[in-house]
Amino acid sequence: MHPNDPRLNSFIPVERDSHFPIQNLPFGMFTTPANYAPRAGVAIGSQILDLAVLEQAKLLEVVPGERVFNRATLNAFIERGPELWSRARAAISDLLRHDNPRLRDDAALRARAFVPAIAARMLMPISVPGYTDFYSSKEHATNVGSMFRDAKHALLPNWLHLPIAYNGRASSVVVSGTPVLRPNGQTRGSDQRAPVFGPSAKLDFELETAFIVGAGNELGEPVPIGRAASHVFGMVLMNDWSARDIQQWEYIPLGPFNSKSFATSISPWIVTMEALQPFRVAGPPQDPSPLSYLETSGAQAYDIRLEASLAPAGKPATTICRTNLRYLYWSIAQQLAHHTVSGCNLRVGDLMGSGTISGPTPDSLGSLLELTWNGSRPIKLDDGSERCFLEDDDEVIITGYAQAKDHRVGFGEVRGRVVAARAV
Amino acid sequence: MHPNDPRLNSFIPVERDSHFPIQNLPFGMFTTPANYAPRAGVAIGSQILDLAVLEQAKLLEVVPGERVFNRATLNAFIERGPELWSRARAAISDLLRHDNPRLRDDAALRARAFVPAIAARMLMPISVPGYTDFYSSKEHATNVGSMFRDAKHALLPNWLHLPIAYNGRASSVVVSGTPVLRPNGQTRGSDQRAPVFGPSAKLDFELETAFIVGAGNELGEPVPIGRAASHVFGMVLMNDWSARDIQQWEYIPLGPFNSKSFATSISPWIVTMEALQPFRVAGPPQDPSPLSYLETSGAQAYDIRLEASLAPAGKPATTICRTNLRYLYWSIAQQLAHHTVSGCNLRVGDLMGSGTISGPTPDSLGSLLELTWNGSRPIKLDDGSERCFLEDDDEVIITGYAQAKDHRVGFGEVRGRVVAARAV
Repeated sequence: MHPNDPRLNSFIPVERDSHFPIQNLPFGMFTTPANYAPRAGVAIGSQILDLAVLEQAKLLEVVPGERVFNRATLNAFIERGPELWSRARAAISDLLRHDNPRLRDDAALRARAFVPAIAARMLMPISVPGYTDFYSSKEHATNVGSMFRDAKHALLPNWLHLPIAYNGRASSVVVSGTPVLRPNGQTRGSDQRAPVFGPSAKLDFELETAFIVGAGNELGEPVPIGRAASHVFGMVLMNDWSARDIQQWEYIPLGPFNSKSFATSISPWIVTMEALQPFRVAGPPQDPSPLSYLETSGAQAYDIRLEASLAPAGKPATTICRTNLRYLYWSIAQQLAHHTVSGCNLRVGDLMGSGTISGPTPDSLGSLLELTWNGSRPIKLDDGSERCFLEDDDEVIITGYAQAKDHRVGFGEVRGRVVAARAV
Repeated sequence: MHPNDPRLNSFIPVERDSHFPIQNLPFGMFTTPANYAPRAGVAIGSQILDLAVLEQAKLLEVVPGERVFNRATLNAFIERGPELWSRARAAISDLLRHDNPRLRDDAALRARAFVPAIAARMLMPISVPGYTDFYSSKEHATNVGSMFRDAKHALLPNWLHLPIAYNGRASSVVVSGTPVLRPNGQTRGSDQRAPVFGPSAKLDFELETAFIVGAGNELGEPVPIGRAASHVFGMVLMNDWSARDIQQWEYIPLGPFNSKSFATSISPWIVTMEALQPFRVAGPPQDPSPLSYLETSGAQAYDIRLEASLAPAGKPATTICRTNLRYLYWSIAQQLAHHTVSGCNLRVGDLMGSGTISGPTPDSLGSLLELTWNGSRPIKLDDGSERCFLEDDDEVIITGYAQAKDHRVGFGEVRGRVVAARAV
């Protein structure tokens, strides 16, 4: 059976609403108090299957005679290419099946190969040589345009013709759970003549997904859109933390810089594109038709339900946004084809953010900027407090999954708590 | 004597107008037909001193018991920090002195340790984890603002308050001599309703220098401006190739992307900040005074003469721009302090471009965009031909040096020839 087959079951118990059934098998990097060595794992139910242990036991061999899962990141595995991703996933799926005794009935090996997720610390899954952030939600671009520029011409003339993007700062991409220091920076309010320096007063989250490049291309050799899919390994959730007041002052004419470079958080589990195939759906209609190098056919979007919630210190979280990746106007294939059409080379591990994913309804907006209309309409949290932007000690949790009839293929979550700015 | 002492002489002959006297000693990576292994070298006159040979011969030991000059890039050396950069440079200077017989009189060792520069192929000197490009020339920002926006308000309100920058694409930074493929992309002329796809018709160069981060900082720990200098290893020349027509269509609101991501060329020799110390001069006066985190005193600029020339295929080069790094409004220390003030972490090998360095006179403009005023005033070349933007097979050569009384501390050159676009 194909690893995506809904009839598959694992001998590891998996709750019906778990993000990690045997049909998912996302890859991540982890460490445990008992074994500090970073190693690759696959999430299954509430357990992590230690792939380094499987390799050592000769139950998993991606590359003959070579180990790839006992490294510091997944890059060594990912760079082997799509055929080996698929083969490894099939082998892992096979080992986890309820009717395969090989691992199931080897108590000693099971004791070494499984770690309760709760006992592990998740690490950055990849080394990120390049980080690009797109701006592919029409609703988000329209909302931001309305607020920062001109409501009548909110969507700029180029937006419907190309997937707008900018280069982000790769060094500050961090894994879920890493505290996020409120940045200091320059801001100038509309009533101020000169800028001031201090902690951002408009710290925001951005609900995004991001795809991870699994196969690069040489400088000068664009990836045609028909082959773009084979260059993508998988996807994560992403929170593109943004300091709106710093951004508004600095971003003209060269784009956001210090307003975004202080942290970008990603979820620790990379869900493979293979696991997401059953959830492909048609994306929004594109009008005008894109230029031929961006032309695609078939289902190019993914039906992935996404949520953001906000938890003040010591308080329960309030869900503040429910959206869906299917709203994204520009597809992953279009993003990748556009990124390389100039000849730009991509590398294994490159992280490509979707841009904030906002939907058409007021509760589907993927940032506080939009939810509170730049602070003018505070949102109410379940504990009775209100928010325009993030306060110190607030935690933002983004989660997402694709729903099949009897299981979910999920991403887990990306979370981060805001820490007070450094004294200046 | 200090390695910068003007009285020093080497036993290797150095012409008076050479860029590489014993007072310079820039670091680079090279390979030769006789030995394909990449290794580090120092330029001296028309020779390269092979540092890997010196290490092997135990004449140079940066780190006791460890070799750092036989790697693929200089990062392993650079990451050792300022004290070791300085100690290595002093040891190399000492070995090259006319009055030190140790290397001078060992004919066998000399035969192995020196390679004529003409026989070597220079490689990328560093691995570049992050590439940032500033926009720190007031003249350039004013010119671009006049053309692309509004001549009356050419300089945007933020420009005098912070060193504007954007994240560039690190993967496509290439070493001098790498051919530059004319990019294809989307453009829309002012008379066109819809964009078209094809080769850029406004391919341009940008004359820049760039500094290389030699010591990083942790995420969340800004580098105070007073300590910024100790984080910088050295400088190179840079050509930030730009497709102006693609840029003008794509850059609002998130900045340049495909218009710059196809190639950025750097010179192969990294001139250390130590070698440039004698050429420090006062920079332009800053009015208004910068915020305190950007406040500096003393000579923060560098008197480095810069030139760009253009050579059509098979024709001699015409010098089209003469400018000077001292015109740069924002200093390197200010750039680095601003980059990290949000908490953004820098890493060893990060490349930080100055932005196009234009001066106050018509012949000191660092791009064709400015020299031809966006193609409206063609420039004349020595062969009688004219240029608005670059044509296929044109070669651009950027060179630069600091002039002392009896020697020059130079960068050599960065060159690149334009290759016709891929058929679409």
